Amino acid sequence: MDSPDSPDRALSRLRVVLVHTTHPGNIGATARAMLTMGLTRLVLVGPSHFPDADAVAMAAGATRVLDDARVVASLSEALAGCALAVGLSGRPRAFAGRVLEARDAAVEAIAATAYGDVALVFGTEMSGLSNEELALCGIAAAIPANPAYPSLNLAAAVQVMAYEARLAAGSNAVWRAPRFAPATHDEAEALHAHAADTLTALRFLDPKRPRLLLPRLRRLFGRAGLEREEVNILRGILARIDQLIARGRRDG
Amino acid sequence: MDSPDSPDRALSRLRVVLVHTTHPGNIGATARAMLTMGLTRLVLVGPSHFPDADAVAMAAGATRVLDDARVVASLSEALAGCALAVGLSGRPRAFAGRVLEARDAAVEAIAATAYGDVALVFGTEMSGLSNEELALCGIAAAIPANPAYPSLNLAAAVQVMAYEARLAAGSNAVWRAPRFAPATHDEAEALHAHAADTLTALRFLDPKRPRLLLPRLRRLFGRAGLEREEVNILRGILARIDQLIARGRRDG
Repeated sequence: MDSPDSPDRALSRLRVVLVHTTHPGNIGATARAMLTMGLTRLVLVGPSHFPDADAVAMAAGATRVLDDARVVASLSEALAGCALAVGLSGRPRAFAGRVLEARDAAVEAIAATAYGDVALVFGTEMSGLSNEELALCGIAAAIPANPAYPSLNLAAAVQVMAYEARLAAGSNAVWRAPRFAPATHDEAEALHAHAADTLTALRFLDPKRPRLLLPRLRRLFGRAGLEREEVNILRGILARIDQLIARGRRDG
Repeated sequence: MDSPDSPDRALSRLRVVLVHTTHPGNIGATARAMLTMGLTRLVLVGPSHFPDADAVAMAAGATRVLDDARVVASLSEALAGCALAVGLSGRPRAFAGRVLEARDAAVEAIAATAYGDVALVFGTEMSGLSNEELALCGIAAAIPANPAYPSLNLAAAVQVMAYEARLAAGSNAVWRAPRFAPATHDEAEALHAHAADTLTALRFLDPKRPRLLLPRLRRLFGRAGLEREEVNILRGILARIDQLIARGRRDG
C-alpha cells in the first residue's frame, strides 16, 4: 500500500504526452520505456496511426499502457487539469519560460505531483515541439547530448526522462548483492596474524624489513569488507601452505 | 583540442560492447543512442546478423558508428586492454563483484578512463549477460526500473548508460583520481588464472570438483576493486608458493 508521498504515487501522476507521432512503432517503444520506469499514463495527440500492429510489436509486453492510452485532438486537451507541463526540446529557441536540464526538470516534475498531474510532453519525430506547443509548457527540458548529433529517438528520449523521473521520485532501489555474514573484528585480525606468520615462513615477508606488505593486504581486504566464509577460505589456503612448508622442513 | 582530462577524451575511451545481439535493428538503434551522447566505439561479440540493412535503418544517420564497429568472437577479446569493464544487468544474481546503480557506475567508468579504455557491456536481448560473462566485469551496473516490468529495450539501456556517462564526464566530481592505479582487466584475469593453477598445485583446489572456490575469490577481489600493485603482491605470493611446490617435487 502506498503512502501519499510514495514514489509510486508520484509516478502515477505523470502523463506522457506524444504530439503528432508519425511512426506507431515509436508509440509502442514509448509504452515499453514508460512501463520499465513505472509510468503507465500515455496520451496521444493526433497520432498518424493508432492503434497499430507496429505499436503492439514494439511495446514488447507493455500493451497495457497502449490499451489504456487516451487519444485527443489537441495538446491543450492533453494538458487539461495538469499542475505542470514539461516540454522536451533539444533546442528551445523561442521558448519564453524556464529551461532546465532533464535531471533538474524531472525533480521539478516530481515535486509538482504534490499538486496534481504532471505532463511530460514530446514533439513529433522530425522536428520536435513547435514554439506554440512549447509555449503551453511551464518548463522546457533539454537532455544533454552531442551537439554534432543530438537526435535521440523519440522513445529513447522518453526512456531518459522516465528514468530521471523514477530516480527523482526516490524509487532507485536496485538489486543488491546477497549479503553473507561479515567477519568479526577478531576473525579478521586472526586472518592477518595467520597471514603474517605464513608469509614469514614462506620467506615472502622479512619481519626485519616488512615494508608495506601487511598494510597493503589490510587495505585490500578492508576495502572489500571481509565475510566470515572468505576468512575461512583464506585461512584454509594459508593452512595448506603451512603444511607444505612443514613437510619441506621434515624432508629437507 | 582536448586536454588529457576533457569530457570528450573520457567519452572517447568508452567502448560499448554488445554480446550476442539477436536483432540487427537493436545494433543500429544502439549506434544512434551512442552517438547522441558522443560515444563512437562499438564492439560486437558474435552478432546474429551484421552488417545488416535493419541496423543501418535504425542508426538514423549514425552509420559512422556502424562502419567503425569491430566484430569479435568472444567477450574476452572485446575486453582486451580495458582498464575496467562495467556489465549491465537487471539482476546480477551470482555476480561476484561490486554492484552499483547506473549513475554511480557511470561515475566509476569515467574515472577509470584515466587509466585506459573502459567497456560498457550489454548482454543478449532475451536474457542479458550470463553469470560467466558478468564475472569478467569488474562492476555490475543496474538501471533502476519497475520491478514488475524491468525489461528495457537493449538500445534504451545503452541510451541511459551513455547519457549517464556523458553527465559523469562533464562533472568535476569525477576527476578526483584514485590513489593508486587500478589493475587492468587483463592483469586481474591473469591473477585469477595464476591463482587457479597454484591452488590446484597446492591441492587446495580439485579441478574435477572446483565447488565455488574460484567464484568466491573473484567476488572478494571484485568487491575490493584490485589495484595493479595488489595484483603484483598477490602474484608474488603465488610465485613463492609455486617455487616451494617445485622444490618439494624435486626433493620428494
